[in-house]
Amino acid sequence: MNPILVHVTRGNAIESVHCGALAIVDAEGAIVAQLGDIERPIFPRSAVKALQALPLVASGAADSLGLTDDELALACASHNGEELHAQTAAQMLAKAGLTVDALECGAHWPYLDTATRALAAQGREPTALNNNCSGKHAGFLCLACALHGGPNLRQYVRGYIQPEHPVMREVTSALQASTGYDLANTPRGTDGCSIPTYAIPLRHLAHAFARVGTGIGLSADHARAAQRLRGAAAKAPFMVAGTGRFDTRVMERLGERVFCKVGAEGVFCAALPDAGLGVAIKIDDGNNARAAEVAMAAVIESFVALDDDEAQLMRSLSDASMRNWNGIEVGRLVAAPVLRGLPP
Amino acid sequence: MNPILVHVTRGNAIESVHCGALAIVDAEGAIVAQLGDIERPIFPRSAVKALQALPLVASGAADSLGLTDDELALACASHNGEELHAQTAAQMLAKAGLTVDALECGAHWPYLDTATRALAAQGREPTALNNNCSGKHAGFLCLACALHGGPNLRQYVRGYIQPEHPVMREVTSALQASTGYDLANTPRGTDGCSIPTYAIPLRHLAHAFARVGTGIGLSADHARAAQRLRGAAAKAPFMVAGTGRFDTRVMERLGERVFCKVGAEGVFCAALPDAGLGVAIKIDDGNNARAAEVAMAAVIESFVALDDDEAQLMRSLSDASMRNWNGIEVGRLVAAPVLRGLPP
Repeated sequence: MNPILVHVTRGNAIESVHCGALAIVDAEGAIVAQLGDIERPIFPRSAVKALQALPLVASGAADSLGLTDDELALACASHNGEELHAQTAAQMLAKAGLTVDALECGAHWPYLDTATRALAAQGREPTALNNNCSGKHAGFLCLACALHGGPNLRQYVRGYIQPEHPVMREVTSALQASTGYDLANTPRGTDGCSIPTYAIPLRHLAHAFARVGTGIGLSADHARAAQRLRGAAAKAPFMVAGTGRFDTRVMERLGERVFCKVGAEGVFCAALPDAGLGVAIKIDDGNNARAAEVAMAAVIESFVALDDDEAQLMRSLSDASMRNWNGIEVGRLVAAPVLRGLPP
Repeated sequence: MNPILVHVTRGNAIESVHCGALAIVDAEGAIVAQLGDIERPIFPRSAVKALQALPLVASGAADSLGLTDDELALACASHNGEELHAQTAAQMLAKAGLTVDALECGAHWPYLDTATRALAAQGREPTALNNNCSGKHAGFLCLACALHGGPNLRQYVRGYIQPEHPVMREVTSALQASTGYDLANTPRGTDGCSIPTYAIPLRHLAHAFARVGTGIGLSADHARAAQRLRGAAAKAPFMVAGTGRFDTRVMERLGERVFCKVGAEGVFCAALPDAGLGVAIKIDDGNNARAAEVAMAAVIESFVALDDDEAQLMRSLSDASMRNWNGIEVGRLVAAPVLRGLPP
């Protein structure tokens, strides 16, 4: 069993716990810290969107279509489906000469409650642009422009979510190159947005993010692409997640010192470029918001040089207040002691 | 560590797991089945609303105010905040001569997404009537009528959520009597709706529900109250939860053969009157919808005599399909083998 990474307290008792595993690895692949089983392949889900976006830049598509920082950040995002996210995804599609109906991610109501209620108040329904993955998918369709280069793009991209489609092959190839893991012989599942997700050990995921943060061990094209994507996320952190979200709040404050990305089912990956490290976390029970995020906040506290304000923000995320409907503090989400004892 | 009770699969791999503990106990307190640690006190949260509603009936308040089955079921509910739930809570308050401003549970948007969007579309905001606990609180205020019996009820009930208020003392006393657990010397927390929650071992919670299902071991007043509340829930299962919810779906199909009630943080209790058993489950990580419910469904399959249609419903809940935004089955929620091997 993996160790407890997060305690959920109520009153003066522990009410619930979240177990998980954690790998912190440098760009050469050396393990700097580990908790639990970091060799078991796990589905990284949306935590690897930046790896999946490498070909968008490396192919030249981002340049030839003139994608902005906002748009590149959105290509790495699991966003809230807010108006600005949806508009930005639509812009990306327009640059590719496509429209919302090319998206194959499916539609869902915005993650952000107030955005959902705003849509409902206007009598509107969500579209695929509101899907938290719409930016990633729009990025895939922009990549398709570079791969195809001919007429009938609309026909070419049909079925781009399938593993054997040229677009998805290119995406998978970047995932394999950056993680150094054999994706042909590992379990494959279908993600929430219908693209394939490949099981990869935390050690390899952390290694990939150390590479993304440093460029070391990536091809020159991928290294440049990684730097560009990290820069875009630092300049447009709202696009990576949105109002109130962990990734946005942390990157707004810490800029290029942290590139972090949550994934479904309790996965969280980050590049810490100053330390030359990559981080990968999986919570066994799949909880993101109150487990993977709390654990990642504690890791950032240990491995990133922070000023007092920054340290206060991170502590508010690694030892967070839980309030009830009357605003009374009823408990806390607390990173377990094992996360406080990590090197350095 | 407690055993894995539920597997979450994706493709042909296990993506996440939920650990927990389970007690099945008869009305004499004999343990019929157990998994994990059933002696550690856990906060039962809303799973014990029926125990907290015993004084509402036992005091004579339910009769003197003419509470209906709908209203008594709502007093045991964690409801969706749908229009009908809110209206029924308002009716209960009206019978007590009170209005929504007497509720001290706080307001929140309805649990049911479509109910939230319907409110938003009408330009409305939620009130305390939409709080999932509004029926329980309205029940407390009805109980207050019997305890107080004088003028100035509005003043008498102020602060009824505090542990030392006469209303809450009566509620706590019923909880102590039915569980047989010393609540004065156990951790106490504040619940989402601001009333106290007392930590109680699963063994005692299961015992309490065996008593609720059989009347054995309860005072005559509490035994009659338990029967009345179970009957009300069986006649008005929509009121206990609402559209699409586990408790409602199961009690709609199985009637008085199961009285089940979910609580926050992965707690689930049930009375199985035909077998004379009580059940109590706690998922370590606090997950209800995809863990406690899946485990409870497997228990019901093992311990309740079901016809083919009923068995099919329960199997669809203990081995449930998970679909993505395009409606593709991407994985399943599956009760672990350990839950299939329980007696009888």
